[in-house]
Amino acid sequence: MEPLVSNRGSRPPVNPDIASEREAPTFPIEKLINLLDGGAARTRTRRAVEHLISCDAVFNKENIYFLTPTEQYEAAVKKAVHLRQKMKKLGWTDDGLEMQFALRALTENLAFGVHNGVFIPTITELGTDAQIAKWIPLAKDYQIIGTYAQTELGHGTHLRGLETTATFDTFSQDFILNTPKTSSIKWWPGDLGRSANHAVVLAQLYTQGMCHGMHAFIVQIRSLVDHSVLPGVKVGDIGPKMAFEHVDNGYLMLQNVHIPRENMLSRYSQVTSDGSYIKQGSDRINYISMVLTRVRIISKTIVPAFSKACVIAVRYSVVRRQSKLNAGEMEAKILDYLTQQQKLLPQLATAFAFHFMSSSLEAFCNQVNVQIKTKGDASLLPELHALSAGLKAITSETSSAGVEVCRRACGGHGYSMLSGLPSLYTWVVASCTYEGENTVMQLQTARLIKDAGIKLQSLLQSGVEQYIAWNSTSVQLAKAAVAHCHYILVKNFVETMEGLKFEPEIQQVIKMLCDLYALTGILDNAGDFLYDGFMTGKQLDLVTACQLDLLALVRKNAVSITDAFDYSDKQLNTAIGNYDGYVYERLYEWAQKAPTNAKVNHAYEKYLKSHFQLAQSKL
Amino acid sequence: MEPLVSNRGSRPPVNPDIASEREAPTFPIEKLINLLDGGAARTRTRRAVEHLISCDAVFNKENIYFLTPTEQYEAAVKKAVHLRQKMKKLGWTDDGLEMQFALRALTENLAFGVHNGVFIPTITELGTDAQIAKWIPLAKDYQIIGTYAQTELGHGTHLRGLETTATFDTFSQDFILNTPKTSSIKWWPGDLGRSANHAVVLAQLYTQGMCHGMHAFIVQIRSLVDHSVLPGVKVGDIGPKMAFEHVDNGYLMLQNVHIPRENMLSRYSQVTSDGSYIKQGSDRINYISMVLTRVRIISKTIVPAFSKACVIAVRYSVVRRQSKLNAGEMEAKILDYLTQQQKLLPQLATAFAFHFMSSSLEAFCNQVNVQIKTKGDASLLPELHALSAGLKAITSETSSAGVEVCRRACGGHGYSMLSGLPSLYTWVVASCTYEGENTVMQLQTARLIKDAGIKLQSLLQSGVEQYIAWNSTSVQLAKAAVAHCHYILVKNFVETMEGLKFEPEIQQVIKMLCDLYALTGILDNAGDFLYDGFMTGKQLDLVTACQLDLLALVRKNAVSITDAFDYSDKQLNTAIGNYDGYVYERLYEWAQKAPTNAKVNHAYEKYLKSHFQLAQSKL
Repeated sequence: MEPLVSNRGSRPPVNPDIASEREAPTFPIEKLINLLDGGAARTRTRRAVEHLISCDAVFNKENIYFLTPTEQYEAAVKKAVHLRQKMKKLGWTDDGLEMQFALRALTENLAFGVHNGVFIPTITELGTDAQIAKWIPLAKDYQIIGTYAQTELGHGTHLRGLETTATFDTFSQDFILNTPKTSSIKWWPGDLGRSANHAVVLAQLYTQGMCHGMHAFIVQIRSLVDHSVLPGVKVGDIGPKMAFEHVDNGYLMLQNVHIPRENMLSRYSQVTSDGSYIKQGSDRINYISMVLTRVRIISKTIVPAFSKACVIAVRYSVVRRQSKLNAGEMEAKILDYLTQQQKLLPQLATAFAFHFMSSSLEAFCNQVNVQIKTKGDASLLPELHALSAGLKAITSETSSAGVEVCRRACGGHGYSMLSGLPSLYTWVVASCTYEGENTVMQLQTARLIKDAGIKLQSLLQSGVEQYIAWNSTSVQLAKAAVAHCHYILVKNFVETMEGLKFEPEIQQVIKMLCDLYALTGILDNAGDFLYDGFMTGKQLDLVTACQLDLLALVRKNAVSITDAFDYSDKQLNTAIGNYDGYVYERLYEWAQKAPTNAKVNHAYEKYLKSHFQLAQSKL
Repeated sequence: MEPLVSNRGSRPPVNPDIASEREAPTFPIEKLINLLDGGAARTRTRRAVEHLISCDAVFNKENIYFLTPTEQYEAAVKKAVHLRQKMKKLGWTDDGLEMQFALRALTENLAFGVHNGVFIPTITELGTDAQIAKWIPLAKDYQIIGTYAQTELGHGTHLRGLETTATFDTFSQDFILNTPKTSSIKWWPGDLGRSANHAVVLAQLYTQGMCHGMHAFIVQIRSLVDHSVLPGVKVGDIGPKMAFEHVDNGYLMLQNVHIPRENMLSRYSQVTSDGSYIKQGSDRINYISMVLTRVRIISKTIVPAFSKACVIAVRYSVVRRQSKLNAGEMEAKILDYLTQQQKLLPQLATAFAFHFMSSSLEAFCNQVNVQIKTKGDASLLPELHALSAGLKAITSETSSAGVEVCRRACGGHGYSMLSGLPSLYTWVVASCTYEGENTVMQLQTARLIKDAGIKLQSLLQSGVEQYIAWNSTSVQLAKAAVAHCHYILVKNFVETMEGLKFEPEIQQVIKMLCDLYALTGILDNAGDFLYDGFMTGKQLDLVTACQLDLLALVRKNAVSITDAFDYSDKQLNTAIGNYDGYVYERLYEWAQKAPTNAKVNHAYEKYLKSHFQLAQSKL
């Protein structure tokens, strides 16, 4: 850490404005940290991993806000390769706890997310044992980098509409791949633009003149010797995005590209040498991979981004002072204003709700996965599928909005990239779109709701039943799905809280947050509760009064609660939300390093100098 | 325009999917264009100006999405200097219609916004005649570039809290300026970081040992000869932001910087040679400049950004097809889905509401300005002040949310910078913070509301009265302000529509949009209307049914309505919302030019090559 701008000698290690907030927390912070981690042992492992990462210069993400997209991509590849080496050296496994925590800490700056998260799992699930044995070791060792080429320029969610074809040619015994139209160009796959030499391409299978629908094929696209693009292939980067500059999202065109017959992933269907198409078993079980991806997005991307934004905004709000509440006093901390509390504290409560939900969802996921693997029993999969779809939609939507509330609550400084908040927003809002657009996700959940209506009605309390009756249009269905997920979230929060009966000190703070979350949910959807009289205006006034009491309680512990997320300064990578509360000093220091402060100013030399010199004699 | 990717020879000039939308508009588009412009003569002037700009290579903004912040800044300075030369040559005046249209067309890419928009007006309003005569000609000729240094690291909205001091020294007859603490560093002023050689610095005036509050001083900060920073001054760029990369927002530290006594702007107060402080007249009249700035933000930034986003999203939604509504048909245009209509068409109606409101507000502003200038009568200023504050808050808030709805409604492609939508969002959302944070703005309006409660009650209809009774807390006051502004917006829309009784064809389409805007407002705030029974759930169902009918009507004319904004492709600068509807072709073409497609791939050479070559023998 470099010296700060002023008062270096005399400055206390922590800004007194934030130190005073930590003086008397009403709960033991370490216990809350353990609860969030899922136990003290996990806290220890997490801290060990994070320590290792923070001591490693390659993983340093300082100055990341100053890099061009190309520089970010290069840094991300470097980090990914380095992590793989580290992992080998330390004996970490892909599914182990250490890797989970490492990925959570590094995910915004790591290349090969699609390679590791989709290419490898797809081959593992859709490939035969021989295919797995051939491809996976190479992929795990980064001797090949693969992408997953599904979406096309003109087609996203609707798989049956995809236009890319793979036609079996009995003469050459090859599949011949084509992206026949502009709208069929593969578009968006991560790791494709500049890195990948292989792709799992999703294409309509044609054999013996018949179309057999979407299948997956392994296609080599670049040379292993010199990375040049292979004949018949056009591939490149799709250009700048709102975020994810470190990822080389790409496009892919294929013109009569031949691949051997054994490159069709053939666990569930294959094409014989005479071109016969044979389907074997059900691939319904594959949904588990899609579900796992979705659950991982919630736990590794959405929830951390949201909670980081809460940490930054709350800490900033006890350092920032503005206007006097009473004459003669110091200017007040902005978190002491009710308007600021109304903005931030419900977000904090929501971040906790999502955190606990994501833990429960991961547990449910593991349970289903074990049932499938050990007993071949996939009976819980449809429920998990629908639940994860709905929760992915509601958590990404709410977290995006929540991060943006946090960002804007930091005023002008929230607009600076150095606050860390703009990139948290552009990062998390992407999750509303990728891996299933949210409206589509909600409709998938709604189908659950519809089928399971009778069963669910016995579970549902409060105003939720109202929605069930509204099954007539998609807009209302989507709304019903949101309401259902909201109910699940409150229920899960309450259960978490009730599970803490032997830890009254933490239970008390969790109850506070749980109540605040539940009541804010009612107030935000007042119209639905008032609609045909489930609640009256008077009752709503009581809810408002209750919420105000809770805000005051949470306000007192706000900084300690955010401390319990236990993010290091390096992970937050913010100038305005550090543990020590030295906001202005750090903003000033960081700004010095911006490339826009380069010594040479071409604009001055070229366009202004001659003008300015004219003024010299006149002033 | 370069050739598109496929079917060049045979491709019709306009994509049939969008051409069919324009086949039978129910209204004459040119008339709607004239209405939006404020008359056919203004349409002609606007088109002439835009044509001139689009033919001028310097103003070209192609490839803007690929530039680094420094490159964007350089391009913006070049454009600003060029525009000034053009203006002189063509005899355009600063206040003339031509400049208004030119600024609207170029504003996202032009440097010196603070110089022209704040530095010059501040001197003009707060300076004596002698000061104006000295500084303004130089400033208008870009022989000096000035910034307006008000906000500090630790202080934004609350002016009295600013810490910078200007102390009069009778011995040297100078003011001595200081930014005494880290929190007093001037932070954010535009044009300061790399361009300005002068600054209007807002500082607490001290003379004869007494503080006389905030005053404005002209301070030279860089040499006119070589642009080097003057002694006692530290100045630089504050680094990367969410957008506005073309603007060099800066910081400024002053340590015992001397300026001559005549550099205090002295129209309303001065310091004599013996250090006496003399106040002359009221500076209340100055608010007009703040109000003008705010009105200009609404009409030049907020409304155009929002309407552009609507144009892009609606056009994309009639080209993009997804899933079949009925078996055997083509995939449906996504705008034919009710969920998409619900997202986009109310935004379109809102953009119209804001456009008409901004025209009315400009007219009101001119009226007040004329009254002040000709009769010294500022009696309407407080009302204008409050109204512009409230409308700035509601339009920036709603437009930001609206642009984001449009962006997300375009799925993955809306996340690409090439869609134009991410930069429209990051651009417009800044207006929620600058020139008055929105919560503060709302509270300013609320104070109107409170004072004028009785007068207003006679005007107010519907549920709005309810709010007036809620004057107890700031949260509720802010809500009341929003409701009041919403009422004003609906009222203004209705009046605009009623004013069209002799143009029934346009009146009909405006009525459609007006009704959609009003009904959506009720549905979005259902809770407030249901609260203590102003409306029943049944009545709300009727509103919903009505809204659905309107969506179907607006859907039919949607593309023609967006065409009426009359934005050229160059102004929209989007790959997915061009007039000709060739979305996929243009995305593909533009991506080729991205710097991330550079031939050399350092990441491959450094980190991947040796790995990949290992796989060669194994595949």
